[in-house]
Amino acid sequence: MGSPSAYLDALIKEFSRLPGIGPKSAARLAFHILKQPLSEVERLSKSILALKENITFCKICGGISDAGICSICSDGNRDKSTVCVVEDARDILTIEKCGGYRGQYHVLKGVISPLDGIGPEELNISSFLRRCSDGQIREAIIAVNPTIEGDATTLYLAKELKPLGVRVMRIAHGLPVGSNIEFADAATIVKSLEGRVEI
Amino acid sequence: MGSPSAYLDALIKEFSRLPGIGPKSAARLAFHILKQPLSEVERLSKSILALKENITFCKICGGISDAGICSICSDGNRDKSTVCVVEDARDILTIEKCGGYRGQYHVLKGVISPLDGIGPEELNISSFLRRCSDGQIREAIIAVNPTIEGDATTLYLAKELKPLGVRVMRIAHGLPVGSNIEFADAATIVKSLEGRVEI
Repeated sequence: MGSPSAYLDALIKEFSRLPGIGPKSAARLAFHILKQPLSEVERLSKSILALKENITFCKICGGISDAGICSICSDGNRDKSTVCVVEDARDILTIEKCGGYRGQYHVLKGVISPLDGIGPEELNISSFLRRCSDGQIREAIIAVNPTIEGDATTLYLAKELKPLGVRVMRIAHGLPVGSNIEFADAATIVKSLEGRVEI
Repeated sequence: MGSPSAYLDALIKEFSRLPGIGPKSAARLAFHILKQPLSEVERLSKSILALKENITFCKICGGISDAGICSICSDGNRDKSTVCVVEDARDILTIEKCGGYRGQYHVLKGVISPLDGIGPEELNISSFLRRCSDGQIREAIIAVNPTIEGDATTLYLAKELKPLGVRVMRIAHGLPVGSNIEFADAATIVKSLEGRVEI
């Protein structure tokens, strides 16, 4: 690079390692940092480390948490009979932001993918089956991504959960709201026809 | 947000303050941090603070530097008779990366903009005129952005520098290499016609 500062080079390199940030964005961020007051830069630096040092995973659902059990699992006002099963802890935030769901969650930490050597044992599935075995959970809504691996995981979970008396549901796959049939791909149109509902 | 972690919320908020990073990218970055080993996260956190704490501005050119005088100004192999005048310290990195320029730099830290209350006194211009007064600098290449404010700054610098015996040049404005006349804006085409060169 031939930059006049080793500290600048080091930070640009660190920023470039983050997802979605190329060398140009990294340089832009580094120069932004340079222009900020020291107090703000300290806050950013500390927040990064604080996240890594303090965050843990909820012992019940596997989602992120500041304590042993996350705020969703310990919230008495939420419906304990419904569990939404997601691939990643991040999906909980996405669904929570929509505001319409009041049940619990369970994070699988991935999906079954034999090609990548990921079977049910590699995932957070056994703890979910244990959660379901006490009879309190009546409905599991599988909200994994609509991929082949996601579908395989959904079928596996359905097979394991049905003997436990849990109703297994899957979120709807079809046309996104506001989209246009003209531009939808064939797989989505087939899914939307298969999943038609009576009005 | 209703996130299950205050540390996560804090970091997403900090990342969202960075330029070009919205709440969704910020969440993505925060989850990336969460998945990295502690040692890498520590390195990122420390690099951010180290930049802010250690970087200074070169006493000669006003560019960023780890010491009192930057590596470009103190490099004996570079041409001391030519100075490229830029708006921002970042522009030095952009020009250096291209590799074709072997002279010195001077950072104005902005351009003359009466509407924003920025006159020549608010910029790093007087130190440049002092640099030029010892007769060593023979050519100043004004490389400010091609805007009205940039043009005004260029004219001002030309007026001040000519009595000092400095040849004042401006970088060429015209069609970008690889672009198409069909899609160029009128102002650029007019500039490219005005700036025609004999072949």
